[in-house]
Amino acid sequence: MRLWFAVYLKKNHLHLMFVLTLSKFVNMQKLFFIASFFVAAFQVKAQNADSIFIKKLADEILTNGKAYENLRHLTKQIGGRLAGSPGMVKSEQWGMIVMKESGAEKASMQQCMVPHWVRGGEDQASFNVQGKKVYEKLDVVALGNSIGTGKNGVTAEVIKVNSFDELEKRKDEVKGKIVFYNYKFNDTYINTFLAYRDASQYRGQGPSRAAKYGAKAVIVRSMSHAADNNPHTGATRYDSAYEKIPAVAIGLRDADKLSKEIEKSKVTVRMQTNGQFLPDTIGHNIIGELIGTEFPKEYITVGGHLDSWDNCEGAHDDGAGCVQTMEILRALKAIGYRPKHTIRFVLFANEENGLRGGNKYAEEAVAKNEKHLFAMESDAGGFTPRALGLSGSEEQFQKFLSWKPLIAPYGCTEFNKGGGGADIGPLSRALKTPTASLNPDSQRYFDIHHARSDVFEAVNKRELELGAVNMAALIYLVDKYGL
Amino acid sequence: MRLWFAVYLKKNHLHLMFVLTLSKFVNMQKLFFIASFFVAAFQVKAQNADSIFIKKLADEILTNGKAYENLRHLTKQIGGRLAGSPGMVKSEQWGMIVMKESGAEKASMQQCMVPHWVRGGEDQASFNVQGKKVYEKLDVVALGNSIGTGKNGVTAEVIKVNSFDELEKRKDEVKGKIVFYNYKFNDTYINTFLAYRDASQYRGQGPSRAAKYGAKAVIVRSMSHAADNNPHTGATRYDSAYEKIPAVAIGLRDADKLSKEIEKSKVTVRMQTNGQFLPDTIGHNIIGELIGTEFPKEYITVGGHLDSWDNCEGAHDDGAGCVQTMEILRALKAIGYRPKHTIRFVLFANEENGLRGGNKYAEEAVAKNEKHLFAMESDAGGFTPRALGLSGSEEQFQKFLSWKPLIAPYGCTEFNKGGGGADIGPLSRALKTPTASLNPDSQRYFDIHHARSDVFEAVNKRELELGAVNMAALIYLVDKYGL
Repeated sequence: MRLWFAVYLKKNHLHLMFVLTLSKFVNMQKLFFIASFFVAAFQVKAQNADSIFIKKLADEILTNGKAYENLRHLTKQIGGRLAGSPGMVKSEQWGMIVMKESGAEKASMQQCMVPHWVRGGEDQASFNVQGKKVYEKLDVVALGNSIGTGKNGVTAEVIKVNSFDELEKRKDEVKGKIVFYNYKFNDTYINTFLAYRDASQYRGQGPSRAAKYGAKAVIVRSMSHAADNNPHTGATRYDSAYEKIPAVAIGLRDADKLSKEIEKSKVTVRMQTNGQFLPDTIGHNIIGELIGTEFPKEYITVGGHLDSWDNCEGAHDDGAGCVQTMEILRALKAIGYRPKHTIRFVLFANEENGLRGGNKYAEEAVAKNEKHLFAMESDAGGFTPRALGLSGSEEQFQKFLSWKPLIAPYGCTEFNKGGGGADIGPLSRALKTPTASLNPDSQRYFDIHHARSDVFEAVNKRELELGAVNMAALIYLVDKYGL
Repeated sequence: MRLWFAVYLKKNHLHLMFVLTLSKFVNMQKLFFIASFFVAAFQVKAQNADSIFIKKLADEILTNGKAYENLRHLTKQIGGRLAGSPGMVKSEQWGMIVMKESGAEKASMQQCMVPHWVRGGEDQASFNVQGKKVYEKLDVVALGNSIGTGKNGVTAEVIKVNSFDELEKRKDEVKGKIVFYNYKFNDTYINTFLAYRDASQYRGQGPSRAAKYGAKAVIVRSMSHAADNNPHTGATRYDSAYEKIPAVAIGLRDADKLSKEIEKSKVTVRMQTNGQFLPDTIGHNIIGELIGTEFPKEYITVGGHLDSWDNCEGAHDDGAGCVQTMEILRALKAIGYRPKHTIRFVLFANEENGLRGGNKYAEEAVAKNEKHLFAMESDAGGFTPRALGLSGSEEQFQKFLSWKPLIAPYGCTEFNKGGGGADIGPLSRALKTPTASLNPDSQRYFDIHHARSDVFEAVNKRELELGAVNMAALIYLVDKYGL
């Protein structure tokens, strides 16, 4: 029996073609067995080489990683960095420096206009139970994008509703009052992002839906199951059909206290907030690149968003994603990897209250007729990695799934359908680019999300690094084998 | 065609027996298909019922759970509770109260003798670089079970060795000196328990191996990759062949600093520790029971250990395991579950420096000729659950594996071979009882393990509760279907 086989490499996909010449004495089953053996041997060799490379990448990140110290600087030296704020400008400058230090062969600032909402001062609220002399303080934070109460504040009776359904039923009682949405974060969802998706509509739509019935202001129960009392901010979206009214979020203990008082007595709240929009200003996506050796005009994007809310250090949201992004660059460079495709490492502007950075990135990609192979985002916290998600075709998903044995040893033991992120969403919609997300463990995320507790100390060094390891492994495999 | 089937329940195992009477016109394949359909339908129904039950259990724990508040009391009101200490006695009393509050149908204290090691005062150490006038403070903690230095302390030149190999090579230089084991926790292991297993031999054997060559005392680099400087204690074991010498652990920053100085100059350390063993005293396993309705004399055990080191609150190690154990009891009782077998909820005594509680539990089981179906332990921290491990026969493992789809939605997506724990080890060895462990995410554990940072604040409420959910689900399945 004679057996030849040729390895045929087409573009970035690996194909094996067997050219077989057979003596008539070799039965097909036996031949198939022998051929399979060669294919398997070849695949095992490729997997071994990948496994060795990924281990090298992981060791580099876990041993010499700079993500944690970079995050310390971003959070402690710069801190909050909402679009339009001085923190935004400082963080952009820092991003350019770290991008270069990490080994970017090209680093640039991609300009875009960003909204410029300012809190305008300390948010305050207190409540009075009918018959009592004193007002008791509430720990509140104005919702992002919300308008202020004016200098005299708003003082009105509070009506508590547990849901939009209850609001609709009691719409005739709302006029002139402050609506308190006491919708609870659902503890029974195991993935806390489901509870967030469920509850965050009250932050987004609550103010306008209350304004429709004549409410003067809104208080929302924070989207969290934290054991503490920190209020959690986040963007609200006014419906232009109704009056814009001020809105604050309240911590969970205060929400429970207020709720109990309202069930017993008439309760008045006075609140003062100072939010306003200044004219749009200039912000930037920070983009580092490793230039592709074979396909320099085909792009792989990996990123996080550089902006954060102003009431926290934005350590998990999304300082983590930013420093992981630059760590992948640093580690690939440090171990001497030269990618086939150009890899872009992007710190996106203005995810929190505008998405102008993500939109700009997609617009330019379209305008320049760029070819985008793949995009990935880390914007779910710097916690221990558990899953990777992919949005793409069934064929792409199957390819992605075939890499699970290579990546799972580093934490992402689940490979799910559906993945991406706010910043890479516009690219995906414009160019049908497949997108992926890193999905770390979700249990701690909404304890700190958009609250003053989202600080450097809440981030664990190894968890942060392992997130970068899992992402880096996927980026490497996509670069090597395509998707 | 006529088809009958009978469901035959034998003991706690489910068997299906088909009694078939066939017309000669029905071919076997068709019959097999029909029969399979009934079996499958029956299994699906059972899985659905189990899935519904486990969801109910999970909702109860995540919504009405008491584990977190119980842990707050144990850590903040009682704190450290080393065998023989006043904290041990208080925690035993507390354990009895909470066991009853949680719904135990029987609660008892199982007496055993426990070692009584005391730290005896503050551990102190400082170092002097030759030629400098001052001594600089080191943050140290004496190793558990270690002897004190005496009132005058120990002052000697330090010899640093990075491994036992280096110690053996330099054995002639050791006499009269303090040996500093600077063996590093290996960052490249993804599961940190592997790094711990690798490094902890220096804590366990280090003092005697140095004493063999005439060392006066020992300093070990803490078994941790924490970013802070807290020293981590833990038990050392003297080899009776050699002199007992004092030993301390040192935090990582101090270890690096000391290491650098030693590489440049002669360094002297003076240290004072005060550890000693008092006579053995009385401690107790705290045992709550839900009595089995069908097999009251067959036992399922679930537990954690009540003792902790004295230099911390023992929140993760192993307050978490204790409150999870009692939460499983509370939740099963709250939703009205009546187990077939007797379930024992055990807070074991003296895991840290003697294992007398676990030994006693096994001894009594043997003495009373008890039948133990299964035992499970949570002693790897109250972090987010990731895996369950089982030690048992291949048949038992396959049965365990068949339950993965029911449990995985709650976090334990990995079902591994090998599981158990120190406290249930003696039972397993004595009676061949299959044992399991809850394996939470390991990244944060050795940041706080045996250090002053193992406090209530390091525990996340939902992670703690989810651990209890996963354990409770397994306990329920073993009770219902046997193992």
